[in-house]
Amino acid sequence: MQHVPYFDAASAAPLHPVARQALLAALDEGWADPSRLYREGRRARLLLDAAREAAADAVGCRPDELVFTPSGTRAVHAGVAGALAGRRRVGRHVVVSAVEHSSVLHAVEDADVTEVGTDRTGLVDAGAFGAALREDTALACLQSANHEVGTVQPVDEAAELCRAAGVPLLVDAAQSLGWGAVAGGWSLLTASAHKWGGPSGVGLLAVRKGTRFAAQGPTDERESGRAPGFEDLPAIVAAAASLRAVRAEATAEAARLSALVDRIRTAVPELVPDVEVVGHPELRLPNVVTFSCLYVDGEALLHELDREGFSVSSGSSCTSSTLTPSHVLKAMGVLSEGNVRVSLPAGTEAGDVDRFLEVLPGVVRTVRARLGAPASGPAAGAGRTAGAQDEGEGEPDLVVDSLGKRCPIPVIELAKVIGDVPVGGVVSVLSDDEAARLDIPAWCDMREQEYLGAHAAPRGTAYWVRRVS
Amino acid sequence: MQHVPYFDAASAAPLHPVARQALLAALDEGWADPSRLYREGRRARLLLDAAREAAADAVGCRPDELVFTPSGTRAVHAGVAGALAGRRRVGRHVVVSAVEHSSVLHAVEDADVTEVGTDRTGLVDAGAFGAALREDTALACLQSANHEVGTVQPVDEAAELCRAAGVPLLVDAAQSLGWGAVAGGWSLLTASAHKWGGPSGVGLLAVRKGTRFAAQGPTDERESGRAPGFEDLPAIVAAAASLRAVRAEATAEAARLSALVDRIRTAVPELVPDVEVVGHPELRLPNVVTFSCLYVDGEALLHELDREGFSVSSGSSCTSSTLTPSHVLKAMGVLSEGNVRVSLPAGTEAGDVDRFLEVLPGVVRTVRARLGAPASGPAAGAGRTAGAQDEGEGEPDLVVDSLGKRCPIPVIELAKVIGDVPVGGVVSVLSDDEAARLDIPAWCDMREQEYLGAHAAPRGTAYWVRRVS
Repeated sequence: MQHVPYFDAASAAPLHPVARQALLAALDEGWADPSRLYREGRRARLLLDAAREAAADAVGCRPDELVFTPSGTRAVHAGVAGALAGRRRVGRHVVVSAVEHSSVLHAVEDADVTEVGTDRTGLVDAGAFGAALREDTALACLQSANHEVGTVQPVDEAAELCRAAGVPLLVDAAQSLGWGAVAGGWSLLTASAHKWGGPSGVGLLAVRKGTRFAAQGPTDERESGRAPGFEDLPAIVAAAASLRAVRAEATAEAARLSALVDRIRTAVPELVPDVEVVGHPELRLPNVVTFSCLYVDGEALLHELDREGFSVSSGSSCTSSTLTPSHVLKAMGVLSEGNVRVSLPAGTEAGDVDRFLEVLPGVVRTVRARLGAPASGPAAGAGRTAGAQDEGEGEPDLVVDSLGKRCPIPVIELAKVIGDVPVGGVVSVLSDDEAARLDIPAWCDMREQEYLGAHAAPRGTAYWVRRVS
Repeated sequence: MQHVPYFDAASAAPLHPVARQALLAALDEGWADPSRLYREGRRARLLLDAAREAAADAVGCRPDELVFTPSGTRAVHAGVAGALAGRRRVGRHVVVSAVEHSSVLHAVEDADVTEVGTDRTGLVDAGAFGAALREDTALACLQSANHEVGTVQPVDEAAELCRAAGVPLLVDAAQSLGWGAVAGGWSLLTASAHKWGGPSGVGLLAVRKGTRFAAQGPTDERESGRAPGFEDLPAIVAAAASLRAVRAEATAEAARLSALVDRIRTAVPELVPDVEVVGHPELRLPNVVTFSCLYVDGEALLHELDREGFSVSSGSSCTSSTLTPSHVLKAMGVLSEGNVRVSLPAGTEAGDVDRFLEVLPGVVRTVRARLGAPASGPAAGAGRTAGAQDEGEGEPDLVVDSLGKRCPIPVIELAKVIGDVPVGGVVSVLSDDEAARLDIPAWCDMREQEYLGAHAAPRGTAYWVRRVS
């Protein structure tokens, strides 16, 4: 098989060889019901117990605190529901970061939710997170690291503040557990095996002793009543074995991949004009780097990269079924158009990264040319200066009608006309595309123009921009 | 590897060779996220679509009516919850058979439930099932075949009655789907792949178009919003492939296994005294046979059979974590002590059944001897006849104190003393064992003694038995 680089490990990693071996062995030894008393059942029980011990050791909890669920999403759903029900009498207020995985945000959709924002790097401020805790806060949720931009969150500090307030903290460790245990006094932790090279079909839910927890849904005897249904034992065995294996390699591999990510972080803005690298430069996962390209359609970019053999994902609106930009990029307030997340699986070769950096500039150029994007650099046009004008009042000097046009067209049209108004003049972009709300301010930021704000228009929204340079 | 017979296919079947092959192939081809646009994602999507078409074809529904869940139990939970929520305005009454799988009974535990009983063969009367439907019935649930005794239920007839009443019928087809599609106008159907030789980790939920359904739990985009979490694609591919494979062999294999089951049904009562074969003699699954042995401790019997190399399961109270007999045997009103379910996996050899029949009599004899069980046949003792006595009144002639003793001891003690009272005399057995409620009447039935009833005693329950012969 031809070697093809795959750069979407944060979504799903290919099966680790150890996982494959363990799965095959457990298909023969672990297909029976572990609750049965006969030979095959006892053998299955031994395998399940051993897997639980190995996983608990990697998580840093006791085996009887950990259950296996059918996915990371199901672990989050069960963990949140059980914790909320266990503290029903305290209240129904929940604190989450605004950049949690959608499974967490959906799990709390019926609660009274406070979302704590982030800075432009996606970093949650632990103090702000702690300050959001209230008397009636039943649960707080903070990811160990962000799945879209790789920013590592101050979970340890947040856990201290939660403990002081008597609020349990649930940590979604899906992106980081393969790299190391989550430090600190969390109360609940969730993870997903196919993110670390384990098989799909296995999530983890750890609930520390002393945490109030009332499992929801119909009664079931399996997995301490916290994860109903017949255990997928071969997959569980493979998940535990591969977690142990990736952990053994984690320090060395993290250093190696982190250097590759650094190269991408440095090289992309040099090689491609009008790019914003997003996510924290230091507090980050070793294998994730995300950037956004002005005047680029994310879906077209993904297709072009795919044609070149690179599999990446994107938080751009055009790649989502709802045509809205990723809630993570929105919360960070960064550009969402032409967004690319590169997440390197363990074992990624430096040569693959080289080739990606070779290919990327041409791919972006092609997509931009197809869209008729303006030339890079500061806005072109005459250096006229407009007369004095009251901010946000009166009429704009120019109106661009981008109604019905999708990201990145409204931004491209704005960029094309900004030079047509004098310095100090105002352009109004009419758009009904959800991404414009994020991308027009981000464009102003990148091009040092002044964003004046958004107003509801008879159709869509009017975004006002003052030409400054 | 030495060939060891495994007779608990109704619990979990060993992996079918086709499932194993498909799983291995899909581990390489189907690990990526099927919702991604790149090469690996598109390949995963194709596999998922093909598996859904194959499974829908075997179920007899449209592909867009079928979703994959992480287990049969989860399919039942999601199906029941969605159907109940979809018909919330109709009411919260549910009709189920008393012998449904525990996942169904647990799924309806918060509803207003009518349980429809069975006859002594475990058969539900369709008319009685239909008569239980009410104006406010939101859902009816009837298994295609019983998991403990193999009795096949009149689903087709029940579906007609449900349709006439405008009530959706959910059919738990876990035990039968490998043998054939469920006929008739059901509205929802659930199944579990590891029952037909597929891998664990895969259930099916089919919801026919036009059935009101509102998925419960947090929002999730996958599987039409009915089964949250990352799809376990390799397992799904293997499940669909093996369903197709077992169906191709089903007619021939059903005939072959059915003949083996007939041999067991005939031979066991001939070879072992005081045995009751339970379940319907004709309306039954091809591969399941269940019998109960008087004066036998189910757990000891399982252990002895395991030592001889046979893996079977039991509905006896001593093999359950709750120390209560199986709710199925209870609903049927049959003997629960010394209960053995033999469920043959596809490919079971006739020689294995021969050896089982060779071994069984000695094993039962050993267990009985260890418990000091009475000799077989009619009650020993003098042929005295007691004077006239009013039924259920006055004092018993003899009281046996079996308090604190577990099944089958109370029945053994009753059998030992029945000959000590004259014909017409009454023995009272004091017991606090839940199984006695089922097994003392069943013993009376088998030994042609008269069961007079149970009364609360200062401790435990007094079971009164009149010696008749």
